[in-house]
Amino acid sequence: MATDREQVFKHLDEFKIELPSWGFADTGTRFGKFVQAAAASTIDQKLADAGVVNKYTACCPTVAVHVLWDFTVGVNATETAAIAKKYGVSIGSINPNLFQDQVYKFGSAASPNESARQHAHRHVQDCISIGKAVASRLYSFWFADGINYPGQDDLIARKRRMSAALRQWHDASPADATLLIEYKPFEPAFYATDVADWGMSYVFCKEAGPKCKVLVDTGHHLPGANIEQIVAWLIDEQMLGGFHFNDRKYADDDLTLGSIDPYAVFRIFHEIRTAAEVHGKDVSKIAYMIDQSHNLKPKIEAMIQTVMGAQELYAKACLVDRRKLADAQAAMDIVAAESCLKDAFFTDVRPLLAEWRKRKGVDADPMAAYRASGYEARVATEREAWRAARGVTSGGSYA
Amino acid sequence: MATDREQVFKHLDEFKIELPSWGFADTGTRFGKFVQAAAASTIDQKLADAGVVNKYTACCPTVAVHVLWDFTVGVNATETAAIAKKYGVSIGSINPNLFQDQVYKFGSAASPNESARQHAHRHVQDCISIGKAVASRLYSFWFADGINYPGQDDLIARKRRMSAALRQWHDASPADATLLIEYKPFEPAFYATDVADWGMSYVFCKEAGPKCKVLVDTGHHLPGANIEQIVAWLIDEQMLGGFHFNDRKYADDDLTLGSIDPYAVFRIFHEIRTAAEVHGKDVSKIAYMIDQSHNLKPKIEAMIQTVMGAQELYAKACLVDRRKLADAQAAMDIVAAESCLKDAFFTDVRPLLAEWRKRKGVDADPMAAYRASGYEARVATEREAWRAARGVTSGGSYA
Amino acid sequence: MATDREQVFKHLDEFKIELPSWGFADTGTRFGKFVQAAAASTIDQKLADAGVVNKYTACCPTVAVHVLWDFTVGVNATETAAIAKKYGVSIGSINPNLFQDQVYKFGSAASPNESARQHAHRHVQDCISIGKAVASRLYSFWFADGINYPGQDDLIARKRRMSAALRQWHDASPADATLLIEYKPFEPAFYATDVADWGMSYVFCKEAGPKCKVLVDTGHHLPGANIEQIVAWLIDEQMLGGFHFNDRKYADDDLTLGSIDPYAVFRIFHEIRTAAEVHGKDVSKIAYMIDQSHNLKPKIEAMIQTVMGAQELYAKACLVDRRKLADAQAAMDIVAAESCLKDAFFTDVRPLLAEWRKRKGVDADPMAAYRASGYEARVATEREAWRAARGVTSGGSYA
Amino acid sequence: MATDREQVFKHLDEFKIELPSWGFADTGTRFGKFVQAAAASTIDQKLADAGVVNKYTACCPTVAVHVLWDFTVGVNATETAAIAKKYGVSIGSINPNLFQDQVYKFGSAASPNESARQHAHRHVQDCISIGKAVASRLYSFWFADGINYPGQDDLIARKRRMSAALRQWHDASPADATLLIEYKPFEPAFYATDVADWGMSYVFCKEAGPKCKVLVDTGHHLPGANIEQIVAWLIDEQMLGGFHFNDRKYADDDLTLGSIDPYAVFRIFHEIRTAAEVHGKDVSKIAYMIDQSHNLKPKIEAMIQTVMGAQELYAKACLVDRRKLADAQAAMDIVAAESCLKDAFFTDVRPLLAEWRKRKGVDADPMAAYRASGYEARVATEREAWRAARGVTSGGSYA
Repeated sequence: MATDREQVFKHLDEFKIELPSWGFADTGTRFGKFVQAAAASTIDQKLADAGVVNKYTACCPTVAVHVLWDFTVGVNATETAAIAKKYGVSIGSINPNLFQDQVYKFGSAASPNESARQHAHRHVQDCISIGKAVASRLYSFWFADGINYPGQDDLIARKRRMSAALRQWHDASPADATLLIEYKPFEPAFYATDVADWGMSYVFCKEAGPKCKVLVDTGHHLPGANIEQIVAWLIDEQMLGGFHFNDRKYADDDLTLGSIDPYAVFRIFHEIRTAAEVHGKDVSKIAYMIDQSHNLKPKIEAMIQTVMGAQELYAKACLVDRRKLADAQAAMDIVAAESCLKDAFFTDVRPLLAEWRKRKGVDADPMAAYRASGYEARVATEREAWRAARGVTSGGSYA
Repeated sequence: MATDREQVFKHLDEFKIELPSWGFADTGTRFGKFVQAAAASTIDQKLADAGVVNKYTACCPTVAVHVLWDFTVGVNATETAAIAKKYGVSIGSINPNLFQDQVYKFGSAASPNESARQHAHRHVQDCISIGKAVASRLYSFWFADGINYPGQDDLIARKRRMSAALRQWHDASPADATLLIEYKPFEPAFYATDVADWGMSYVFCKEAGPKCKVLVDTGHHLPGANIEQIVAWLIDEQMLGGFHFNDRKYADDDLTLGSIDPYAVFRIFHEIRTAAEVHGKDVSKIAYMIDQSHNLKPKIEAMIQTVMGAQELYAKACLVDRRKLADAQAAMDIVAAESCLKDAFFTDVRPLLAEWRKRKGVDADPMAAYRASGYEARVATEREAWRAARGVTSGGSYA
Repeated sequence: MATDREQVFKHLDEFKIELPSWGFADTGTRFGKFVQAAAASTIDQKLADAGVVNKYTACCPTVAVHVLWDFTVGVNATETAAIAKKYGVSIGSINPNLFQDQVYKFGSAASPNESARQHAHRHVQDCISIGKAVASRLYSFWFADGINYPGQDDLIARKRRMSAALRQWHDASPADATLLIEYKPFEPAFYATDVADWGMSYVFCKEAGPKCKVLVDTGHHLPGANIEQIVAWLIDEQMLGGFHFNDRKYADDDLTLGSIDPYAVFRIFHEIRTAAEVHGKDVSKIAYMIDQSHNLKPKIEAMIQTVMGAQELYAKACLVDRRKLADAQAAMDIVAAESCLKDAFFTDVRPLLAEWRKRKGVDADPMAAYRASGYEARVATEREAWRAARGVTSGGSYA
Repeated sequence: MATDREQVFKHLDEFKIELPSWGFADTGTRFGKFVQAAAASTIDQKLADAGVVNKYTACCPTVAVHVLWDFTVGVNATETAAIAKKYGVSIGSINPNLFQDQVYKFGSAASPNESARQHAHRHVQDCISIGKAVASRLYSFWFADGINYPGQDDLIARKRRMSAALRQWHDASPADATLLIEYKPFEPAFYATDVADWGMSYVFCKEAGPKCKVLVDTGHHLPGANIEQIVAWLIDEQMLGGFHFNDRKYADDDLTLGSIDPYAVFRIFHEIRTAAEVHGKDVSKIAYMIDQSHNLKPKIEAMIQTVMGAQELYAKACLVDRRKLADAQAAMDIVAAESCLKDAFFTDVRPLLAEWRKRKGVDADPMAAYRASGYEARVATEREAWRAARGVTSGGSYA
């Protein structure tokens, strides 16, 4: 093994994964939700669950929050930050909600409806305030904006409205803020989406200003898109802000990371390590965040599974013998070059991860340890009682 | 024009399109619903709306019902049939709901959970009873069954459970019933769907018995699938039961028919007319049904638009000069053969449809006439009051 | 009709389509070629055929040339320009061939092989000379560069090599030159392509300099990509250089334009007209070029078919009532807005085109006139004799 | 590990992979071929190369032959079988070539051209004779048949012609023959392919007779298709004949197996082992064949790489703890069930394979051993001389 164990441990130490508050609540598909007794309803419950994931994995110190779902009007954001601290985590990226209100029927920032644009603007201002209150400098923008039918709206007009909003928000955010701009080809817009691919996100970021960076959601691509190439490009262009982790086979399926194509995830991490080790790029600012939406798996288990999978695949990427690889590439020996990747990918890194966890003082098998803790059964009982007392039937956030 | 006007009128007379009751209620995506004041909440309201569509288009005499949404426990189905009659329509296909209850978390007929399978069985028995009560003989089955993760369940075991259920339901249904089995590649299952493509539907139908036929939903295919070829195959195999009409650009987008690719819809109709006119196949039993799920367009207008679009594209398909086409095909003259299709497709059939409507005693422009009627504004007011009185906020069916 | 007839005629006058010399030669798939007796072998024959297409359509005054196939070593390019003139056309865009030589096994500009990069560089220098000699200022670059296997080469290194080459060629080209940079997601590279999407082409162009513009080949996109939105974006960014016209259902199928999805082509033209008429963008410099590769249709007929189809769809796009459309969009009336497009698309413009052709002094039906001319049979005989005399069996350019 | 080492060895003993003669010759894309000095030109050279792969891997005892490329008119097939024997292999499946002759321009068995159908019929009769002569009973049919444009031919007529041909060939083949019918969605036909998916292949096989079985080429599916589910279905229906191994990211890319998505290949093998071990299906007759078409990797190395990859992924599939998996599935514990697959997939089986090879008397690392042998350099020299003597420039089969 060319990369030594201690170096891999060091890279794992730096590989922090942010948990999404909404990933602990009931979610579903447009055909319905399958509710879970242990699903979280409140920001307190969500932070508690996130704290549990962090406790067993030792690599998830921050929690992304979805403003509309987690900060009801009048809530004191500073108190929320204190609650997070109580559970051993802190507030990470701030996610505005620019799609759920009825006013957003035709979009938010790109809507032809001025009220919608103003509503979006006020909401983003609130988000910036919350970010300041919780000492987070990461704002993560996903726009559901788009149109469902040819002719529904003017595509250039929408592009310009979106661009104007982003410039405005860029300028209104703190000097040390980062605005992550996510792209997605379709859903919920089914004809044209206003930030449809990395190229559109890139151009919007360039036009808005240096605080804007591109966010890559691993499920937001057309069939066949080479995500790792996009990642390599964005790093080389100094425009990669971060990731939303999940996996997919068809559309934006929001499955746990690596459940469908683990080699593809490994290749993304390989590009990151290559950019750092071969090209000297600074990859320390890349924000790794989970954005999965499980309908079936228990929420916390799903999160632990993604975290463990991400760590294993990242460790494998650290093991690629990049000197040997560079030699094979220079010799145009495709078979040998490819084998460098396959050798690392098929190395069993589970013992290595177990050792790393031992050093961090956590169980070698986070999933088993969590299952043994009885946490899910306990909160299921508590939360069922909590919901019964309030007459609600589900712990959901999404519609 | 090789096909004369009267023949086209005759074909249009026979081209009846069934409206879906759920298409008049609020629906949405997993990110939320944009509610419409005029959306229908009750089966009475839905039938009223369907009656309006039929009144203006003169080609939608039946309404598909979704059992769980339209027939609450204790409802007298015969009375529902009477309500339909009052609005000038009758009850068409019966659609069981085998996906919404919590028990269906791991599937219905194919679930490893015996309770789910029994629940599904009882529900289908209820549906058969309702079908008898309303004198409908068309049962339309869509299964959300599938799994989200590799390993989640045994694919062969699921196949056999599904097959056993279909045989049982085939045998339990009236002798003159038709059971339509719909296929869909993904959503809400994101790894494997139990009836994923036409081949699976075909094999299930063959194994269940002669009352089972394949249902083609125009939005339920992988990218690139040649739907018209599947249609030609199924007709030639005497296995085509009917259609669910909608359009899509990406996944199962459920847009209005022909809004994205009208030439593809035309080609489907061309295959139907070719099967009938060139190969002497009986296409009179094909059930044409709409299954679209608009989030943005006004419900009734969306329905009228799909109906008008379908009629125009069907009329164009009737105009293909099949004698000239056969000659060009025999001569292997691709350019001339293709032109036969293009000539028909680009013929402006709107005057022809206007004439047909005049003969039917309806307005030449159903959309304009409907808009002029003020119906939407009127029911919006009434239904808002209705919902306010009951404390509900949306006229939806879907989750 | 909001746009009057004379305006449409004016737009049609300006809508010139460039023919590809290689589109008159035998081509095929990797499984073989089906040769045509009338296929062109030499640049003289190709220019003759192009002249015929222009003669019957009156809108194809220029011919794109593929340097390796059309300018053998020692050929006097000025003479070629004279031959073109003889046939009533002139030389249009210059297309370097950076994929056919054995040295390009691992790429051209992005190859790790320095010889390949130097070979490419010399070839492009030759192309620039030829461009000067034939008074063309349009250079059209398609790179087959990419890798077939993960690990085969370093993606960032390849990106930088490509960028350096483009900058160099940008600077080496005449001040009034335009360099069109084409993108393509896959084929012949099957893991990663160095200019894979519009975003990569855009960034490369920006880095190389203002003479570089993006070339959109309508067949070079992943399934579902919204091409018209990309077109609108590029126009708004002043980065759209031109088009390669063809149609596809699956991959880069290279069929005649509009044969699979004419409404999609119409929507592209609609965006161009909207950019011009609503947003005042200059669209006069957009280069419209055909790049189709027929295996089955007779070469000249295929070309005439694409030209006629493009004109009809462009005329339809001119007919969109953009005032009415803007009103519907402002009112967020999706149904009415969409109808503006559909009304124009389903207007039968064939009489309009016939009239335009009459004014140009050409036959109202170019295809019928060409077929009646007996040209194909005549050149088939001549060229069979020509090939027999030289012992060659096919008129092909491609491998 | 639930499955013991000896059982895995036994399964590996039975897992034989057939090599394609054409995989040792130069191939390419429609944009050209990159020729290899060591590429084989003659059937003797191809069999020699296949013998080398078998010698180093000990699991490739048979070689698929492509009749047109390997059996020139007048060749004595029995002698070819003797040559194979000399190289330690024997002739496996017989592959008719029904796409290369000019007569097949509009298809072979499904062509509207009666000459083409007759030509195909005579060729298949020749293939049957060759099969008898070489004592092979496996006939592998891939049809390039299809149409490129809507309207080009009548889809139902084509279906019937194909069906009639298959019935005829079924009846003409020896009683103990198996006819494998391959499907493919597109290429070289770009609008409709006559055997486009597993369902069409299945129906054709059922109609032709019991000797016909479906052939699954892992690269012949639309984006997103769940291949392992199709495999499970076909096994359960007793209709799976065999596989063509290769990998792909976009279309039919023909890359080495597992180079893009090794987990997907593992899941196919998992379904085969599940069918055998859980459902008692006989999987011993499944024919595993390689059909890859490398443009860049050295031919023999590419073959060894695919063989080794297939063995490793098959061994991993053997290691799935199916008892534990069944328990988790019964408990509807998705996380635990999925982990059974992941645990097996991420087990490093390379030591196990090394041990198996030692028992077979071959080197633990076939690739290294082959590279060390100097075979490629030796035959490169010989074959260059051979080609120079004959004035040919490439060792190719494909166009």
